[in-house]
Amino acid sequence: MKISNLIEQIKLKKSYLCVGIDPDLDKIPEHIKKLEDPLYFFSKAIIDSTIEFSVAIKFNIAFFEVYGVKGISSLERLINYVNKKYPKIFTIADAKRGDIGNSSDRYAKAYFDKFGFDSITVSPYMGKDSIEPFLSFKDKYAIILALTSNSGSKDFQLIPSEGKRVYERVLIESRKWKGSANIMYVVGATKASHLADIRRIIPDSFLLIPGIGRQGGSLKEVSFLGMNNNIGILVNSSRSIIYASKNEDFADIAGFEASKLQGEMELILKEKKFL
Amino acid sequence: MKISNLIEQIKLKKSYLCVGIDPDLDKIPEHIKKLEDPLYFFSKAIIDSTIEFSVAIKFNIAFFEVYGVKGISSLERLINYVNKKYPKIFTIADAKRGDIGNSSDRYAKAYFDKFGFDSITVSPYMGKDSIEPFLSFKDKYAIILALTSNSGSKDFQLIPSEGKRVYERVLIESRKWKGSANIMYVVGATKASHLADIRRIIPDSFLLIPGIGRQGGSLKEVSFLGMNNNIGILVNSSRSIIYASKNEDFADIAGFEASKLQGEMELILKEKKFL
Repeated sequence: MKISNLIEQIKLKKSYLCVGIDPDLDKIPEHIKKLEDPLYFFSKAIIDSTIEFSVAIKFNIAFFEVYGVKGISSLERLINYVNKKYPKIFTIADAKRGDIGNSSDRYAKAYFDKFGFDSITVSPYMGKDSIEPFLSFKDKYAIILALTSNSGSKDFQLIPSEGKRVYERVLIESRKWKGSANIMYVVGATKASHLADIRRIIPDSFLLIPGIGRQGGSLKEVSFLGMNNNIGILVNSSRSIIYASKNEDFADIAGFEASKLQGEMELILKEKKFL
Repeated sequence: MKISNLIEQIKLKKSYLCVGIDPDLDKIPEHIKKLEDPLYFFSKAIIDSTIEFSVAIKFNIAFFEVYGVKGISSLERLINYVNKKYPKIFTIADAKRGDIGNSSDRYAKAYFDKFGFDSITVSPYMGKDSIEPFLSFKDKYAIILALTSNSGSKDFQLIPSEGKRVYERVLIESRKWKGSANIMYVVGATKASHLADIRRIIPDSFLLIPGIGRQGGSLKEVSFLGMNNNIGILVNSSRSIIYASKNEDFADIAGFEASKLQGEMELILKEKKFL
């Protein structure tokens, strides 16, 4: 998917919401647990009821991998469903992969070619040759972890290095890599105070911003600090949408929660003169 | 598996060799490609013929994930075979995972409980709460990327931060984490000059050292610099063993290559008075 198409969708749907799919068998409604592929049916119901209000779907791969072959099979079924039914939605494999070149190349092929995602989150610790294999696919994106929403982000991402923070050096270095037009970045909503600095280094890149809702970040704050001239942000919400209800109405309630966020986003997009 | 059992196996087999399983359908012998599960049969043949000379097997998850559900199914079949047939071998999921707490917890459960590996490689970029979920499993190990063998290791791992390198800060910080006795570290053989510094910071931890053979590291050099009083190292070789021959004799030749490394390791273990 081209970035220009993503921006078009944001304007059309008046939303830059990304719905995070973290399906947990311990948390999904009882009547779904009894089905033959509960991960698939739960996730599909959430997607169908939130699609009107969202432009992106982020699949948390850990929540599929934990169920082994069966989990990966549900993931494959889901992404095939989404690519067929909703070809204009931007899909993210939240996988945090990254390895030496020939292994990263396999991860890229797995998520872009085999599964057919538009993008994958990647960890920058191993440097340039661990990320570049993800950047050579047309209209596919590597979303590099820059500054994450968790408390451990202070351990290494925020430590100083020659007048910069380590995460700033990740932003600066990665801009020089081959295929860098295909890079987006993860910046946690809980780190809003850094967004102005981040935008000075990467004014044009798209940001994926997780951490509003349960993790405590503010939608309005991250939107005003994170947006650029092309909107430039996707804001993710997972648990506060998908587990808003544990009853039979879970999908409707998820849709309602997504619609509330879409409503707030529409106001912000208007205030910023994008609509 | 307990570390004491691993050390016992090293002394018994006179080897600290880890065989890396990176099965690539483009590189495996023609007669294997025709089988119904070539990843499994190729890997199994390599394992059966090298097991006598090795104490650990490292499965490169990227090379399974690239084949989707079928690849993960081969992986599951392989690890079940190994755990049943060779319960004393130390198994490593080379997966480089790491995510916020509840996601890392799922990855830990996937690899330790569901698949049954003894250990998994993890990336430290997201800090303490991304790794601690891997450290609460009895006799299971998180092998943290410290200083990797690839050229990109210079981009962030080797940059300075308050008088240390970033990878040294990873070593120093991670020692303080809950369950740190279950941590091992990846240090690339191509970075042998750093091993003395590393041993000053983490004298007691086991190191997984990839990068001899095709990547250019020297077995003797890394062994003398990396060993501690309890041996303390596993040295991995992947491609120079598993692709030593592309013919029908591939497994025998892999066994032969492994035996050569075992022979060199035996001499080093004797010189260091471990045997």
